[in-house]
Amino acid sequence: MNAEAAERIMARADELGAISEVEGCLTRTHLSEAHRRAAKLVAGWMREAGLSVWTDAAGNVCGRLEGASPELPAVVLGSHIDTVPDAGRYDGPLGVLLAIDVAERFAHAAEQLPFALEVVAFSDEEGTRFGSALSGSRAFAGAWDDVWWGYTDSAGTTLREASVAYGLDPRNIGDAARRPRDLVAYLEAHIEQGPYLERAGLPLAVVSSIAAARRFALTVTGSAGHAGGTPYELRRDALVGAAELVVEVERIGQDLGVIATVGRLQAFPGGVNVVPGRVELSLDLRAETDADRDDAWARIQEAADGIAAIRDLDWSVTEIYRADAVACSDELMAAVEAGVRAAGVDDPLTLWSRAGHDAMAVAEVAEIGMLFIRNGRDGVSHSPDETVAVGDVAVALAAFEETVRELARRRG
Amino acid sequence: MNAEAAERIMARADELGAISEVEGCLTRTHLSEAHRRAAKLVAGWMREAGLSVWTDAAGNVCGRLEGASPELPAVVLGSHIDTVPDAGRYDGPLGVLLAIDVAERFAHAAEQLPFALEVVAFSDEEGTRFGSALSGSRAFAGAWDDVWWGYTDSAGTTLREASVAYGLDPRNIGDAARRPRDLVAYLEAHIEQGPYLERAGLPLAVVSSIAAARRFALTVTGSAGHAGGTPYELRRDALVGAAELVVEVERIGQDLGVIATVGRLQAFPGGVNVVPGRVELSLDLRAETDADRDDAWARIQEAADGIAAIRDLDWSVTEIYRADAVACSDELMAAVEAGVRAAGVDDPLTLWSRAGHDAMAVAEVAEIGMLFIRNGRDGVSHSPDETVAVGDVAVALAAFEETVRELARRRG
Repeated sequence: MNAEAAERIMARADELGAISEVEGCLTRTHLSEAHRRAAKLVAGWMREAGLSVWTDAAGNVCGRLEGASPELPAVVLGSHIDTVPDAGRYDGPLGVLLAIDVAERFAHAAEQLPFALEVVAFSDEEGTRFGSALSGSRAFAGAWDDVWWGYTDSAGTTLREASVAYGLDPRNIGDAARRPRDLVAYLEAHIEQGPYLERAGLPLAVVSSIAAARRFALTVTGSAGHAGGTPYELRRDALVGAAELVVEVERIGQDLGVIATVGRLQAFPGGVNVVPGRVELSLDLRAETDADRDDAWARIQEAADGIAAIRDLDWSVTEIYRADAVACSDELMAAVEAGVRAAGVDDPLTLWSRAGHDAMAVAEVAEIGMLFIRNGRDGVSHSPDETVAVGDVAVALAAFEETVRELARRRG
Repeated sequence: MNAEAAERIMARADELGAISEVEGCLTRTHLSEAHRRAAKLVAGWMREAGLSVWTDAAGNVCGRLEGASPELPAVVLGSHIDTVPDAGRYDGPLGVLLAIDVAERFAHAAEQLPFALEVVAFSDEEGTRFGSALSGSRAFAGAWDDVWWGYTDSAGTTLREASVAYGLDPRNIGDAARRPRDLVAYLEAHIEQGPYLERAGLPLAVVSSIAAARRFALTVTGSAGHAGGTPYELRRDALVGAAELVVEVERIGQDLGVIATVGRLQAFPGGVNVVPGRVELSLDLRAETDADRDDAWARIQEAADGIAAIRDLDWSVTEIYRADAVACSDELMAAVEAGVRAAGVDDPLTLWSRAGHDAMAVAEVAEIGMLFIRNGRDGVSHSPDETVAVGDVAVALAAFEETVRELARRRG
């Protein structure tokens, strides 16, 4: 039964994965026509599963199965259906599809749950179109920020305009917010987006927390000059300084067990025969704890100051993102672990999530728990090369169902 | 008299500097309407100086003053009138304007030179529009390459089409070529584009040679990956490898007295949260000798191999430019030095040119000599901040005139 269901989930992931706003690859951004089609498909599957379905004011697709009595607080199973550019098929959708199948099982089962069961297909987890990452789950958590309405996509359309065009009413955004007393727990299944399960030879892991993260945009400034006419002793070469900093960032990250990545770097003006006068670069920090993250940033700033002093450079920084670590609750970790064991994994791995998830936002209104599913090829994600084995999906389905049942036992 | 003449040269440099194809800055590229206007202005000044004037098949403006008898081989004084984007007013034009004034002095003098005196205002030294740097002086040297006809500008216009539109006949390009037996010498006055004269407190230098140069486009390749999901031990981060290489390039250049510059560098795909899978960078090498230059390149390749081996990266390279060092002839260096001394500089500096010049191309058909003129602000060039002092122009004019006279004495 799990094998058959897993086949259907894989087929649905393929079907969703074919809905893209860009031909030849999968790109499905918030409030796009592709999003509308994907949301409609997902809503149909929710209805088939026996859920009552609505779209909230943020564009999230919600489905609900009542528990033993009407209007009980809900256990929410969710993930997202928007994507990064040129994405894989499983980052987000797999969690939604697993949730729909789990809900369908309880809809058809004789047993009565001591809570309502909801499925939410969030949009805008990635923030690809407007830069408003997690806006769907933040609306759900009552943490909407009105400044996001003015965010624009590359065509200059604001989030407000796109929302209206999608058929949403921005004035009702508060209606998407859930009250803590209406929620029992939030559970999210997601591909690991990392290599640890594959290396351990295990299909599933219990998630302990979601990474503390900070992102920065840095500028290193020196003086541009003619390559031939500017001897070394007169140079203020922003690129050599930035290069030293990139090497230091890696060393500090390795030293402290923090993931520090410079993903974007460009030298300006960029002439072959011009000493670079300016370099723009990004820095992404992820750590298990806020303290580790901030410690790494302090050391990186010291390194930048040292390089700038020696090379007579200036540097400046803008913080563009900050998220403190979010812990999964002990109870939900225990429930997820019970589910994983029930699915036949005797010695489950516990991992902290290096990536952000909707669960981070939902944590403001509910306790959270997460289940990681092995994805192949060293955990490649945000890429069409993203893979998940159908057998792992079958095990995940069993584990996710058992997690809900374990929670029912605990809260029954 | 020199002071007055220098004032006129500065005024002419301002007048030429106002002729631009881009409003608000000086950009004057090969065969543009701005080039046409500048060429017309220069041709007029040549005629006023008493020269017979023509435009050759490559678009170079040539003026000639016969010597003691008609059709004697010529001493050619030249430089260029095209510019880089957002240029200064002196890189190229100053040499042309000095040449016109020197020729005017001999046109009006009683003395008869034992050679003809020509002035050439080359175009396309910089190669800004078509990427065909030095095409004017290469045509002059009989080293035209027909492949250049197909080079296109950013609008898709070929060099051939632009030449025809300018009124030139590509079939006649061979007519621009000079025969060695018709040339006595080529002399070029140029701003230093470097800080050495300024630092020495001297207005003029004798040039010994023009740099050996090579330029490369390098690619460092690793694997892109999600910043959160790819632990250090699985990373093949192309940017950290490239950063190490940038630092090594500087160290090797300083070690060997070679100028090694990475002017362009960009990481791809360039996402804040993506480990860079590829980096594109440029390398510009300049050295006094070919051996020094090639030695530096060998050491840089070793460094790249070492970094690639340690980090499991690949790297590849395309050579995009190569010029061997071109020596100024002993006789012309002696003549330039005599001119500089006659102008009152007792202990002239001798410098090798870190930048390329039309003289490099002309060296194929004539011995070359060059005079450098101090330019201020640490020798800034290829920038609107380029400056030359009027007093230095006066001294340069005297020196350039005396260089021709010294050559007349030697060849008389």
